[in-house]
Amino acid sequence: MNSALGIDIGGTKISYALIDNNGNVQGEIQKVSTPKTAREIEALLKNIISKFEDNVEFIAIATAGTVNNENNKVIGSTANLPKGYKEIDFSSLSLKKVFIENDANCAAWAEYRIGASMGYKNSIMLTLGTGVGGGIIINGKLLKGKSGGAGEMHFAMSRNQKRQCTCGAWDCFEAYASGNGLRRTAVEITKNENITTYDVVEGVENSDENCIKALKTWENDIALGILGLGNLFDPDCFVLSGSMEKFVDTERIEQFVNSHILTSPIKVFHAKAGNYAGMIGVVLLGNELI
Amino acid sequence: MNSALGIDIGGTKISYALIDNNGNVQGEIQKVSTPKTAREIEALLKNIISKFEDNVEFIAIATAGTVNNENNKVIGSTANLPKGYKEIDFSSLSLKKVFIENDANCAAWAEYRIGASMGYKNSIMLTLGTGVGGGIIINGKLLKGKSGGAGEMHFAMSRNQKRQCTCGAWDCFEAYASGNGLRRTAVEITKNENITTYDVVEGVENSDENCIKALKTWENDIALGILGLGNLFDPDCFVLSGSMEKFVDTERIEQFVNSHILTSPIKVFHAKAGNYAGMIGVVLLGNELI
Repeated sequence: MNSALGIDIGGTKISYALIDNNGNVQGEIQKVSTPKTAREIEALLKNIISKFEDNVEFIAIATAGTVNNENNKVIGSTANLPKGYKEIDFSSLSLKKVFIENDANCAAWAEYRIGASMGYKNSIMLTLGTGVGGGIIINGKLLKGKSGGAGEMHFAMSRNQKRQCTCGAWDCFEAYASGNGLRRTAVEITKNENITTYDVVEGVENSDENCIKALKTWENDIALGILGLGNLFDPDCFVLSGSMEKFVDTERIEQFVNSHILTSPIKVFHAKAGNYAGMIGVVLLGNELI
Repeated sequence: MNSALGIDIGGTKISYALIDNNGNVQGEIQKVSTPKTAREIEALLKNIISKFEDNVEFIAIATAGTVNNENNKVIGSTANLPKGYKEIDFSSLSLKKVFIENDANCAAWAEYRIGASMGYKNSIMLTLGTGVGGGIIINGKLLKGKSGGAGEMHFAMSRNQKRQCTCGAWDCFEAYASGNGLRRTAVEITKNENITTYDVVEGVENSDENCIKALKTWENDIALGILGLGNLFDPDCFVLSGSMEKFVDTERIEQFVNSHILTSPIKVFHAKAGNYAGMIGVVLLGNELI
């Protein structure tokens, strides 16, 4: 079985492993802290790649940030990666082909190929973490848009500038549907400026009324966003992933959405491809696109 | 030059003409009132088609409502077409191939092939009329979704149930960005329940402060929706069409959107393919897909 070296570059750690053409991780997954400068990241990647490149078909890198349509350049970085990260010339890191893609897109692809949305040609993955990531698959192809940046879950949920989003605009879906969105909703409900996302989750477990209200409001906002996306894309299904997805009642969301949707009913699934979906997805995607 | 019979079926009138492969209307465009029953519409279509079918390659029909992915069946009707319209067996209307598609999608296709978005592979058309229609083109292909219904501009602009939409849900983009949305915005601003969309337009011409405020608020809502769509789709451009588009300052919208967009800058154009874009678009699309 041919295989690739899969690498996942996040703001806090870099993970890597040999992955075969079916998306099976071979051997152990290695993890290292993400260095603090772009130059150190580049050196680290070179070092990792040099150990594996003779034995793999290609190098597949899932990365935070926006990746161009040629899958060889990061064109939009994120706050959690160092300055200069965009300037890294990924192609030069190996004599083998280096294929890169945005991590949320890769995770969506893994769900489509081996996970929760397997068999569904039209799916939208929402990664509910500190922020909200998105990966959209249309007719079996990743939606990239003109420059590679499609799938940003930043559409306004209010016309009246209620919450500023991390992106600078106001009231984006991310500002409500993310873990941080849940926290902000809880602050509004409890009037306690210091409440954390963790406090809310704990409060729900202890049947605290305000925390339950915050969680349900957060879930309603996710449902409202999914309804809009359902009307725009008419997808088969949504896949929810990320650290916050386990708090979502997918059945309740499905019922709300399908009672209002104009296109046709959708399904809402919990992700199944696991914590390394990004790394696996970029290998599976590279397999098809290279 | 080979040609097709193009037919546009709307709630109030049915238009038709011979159209060549380049989208040029040959001869005069004929118009008749849309009959009040599905049976009468079917009989009228048969009659029209019988006059032309020997001299054309295929019959192309742009219609209100949702059309399936096989382009042969209306699967979702609209309020302005009679009961039973969905049951019409379009394929049986002619011995030649009958190709049907949703009218907003067809108009978007005409703009892409011969109009404002020509040369741009990723575009979104918004038809601003009584309601808001949408047609989305991704990488040179019409976005249809799993069942054919994609492109519905019904995503929430508020979390707090401010305006019920004609679709039954609350606060959809359509409820703000449509002509009727402008009227509702003007009612909120002027406290005059009887103000019409026409009154607002006239008021703006006469420098009425409230009417100008209503129009600018409406335009801001359109801009906010376009920003969200821009972040989701990363399109090259937006094309605005419909009876209301002439009141939109596209330059102002472009500036707002491009100062907030996360993906990459977009353009906003006024439509160019004219009043018969639907009829022309369905012929051009049928040419490629049949």
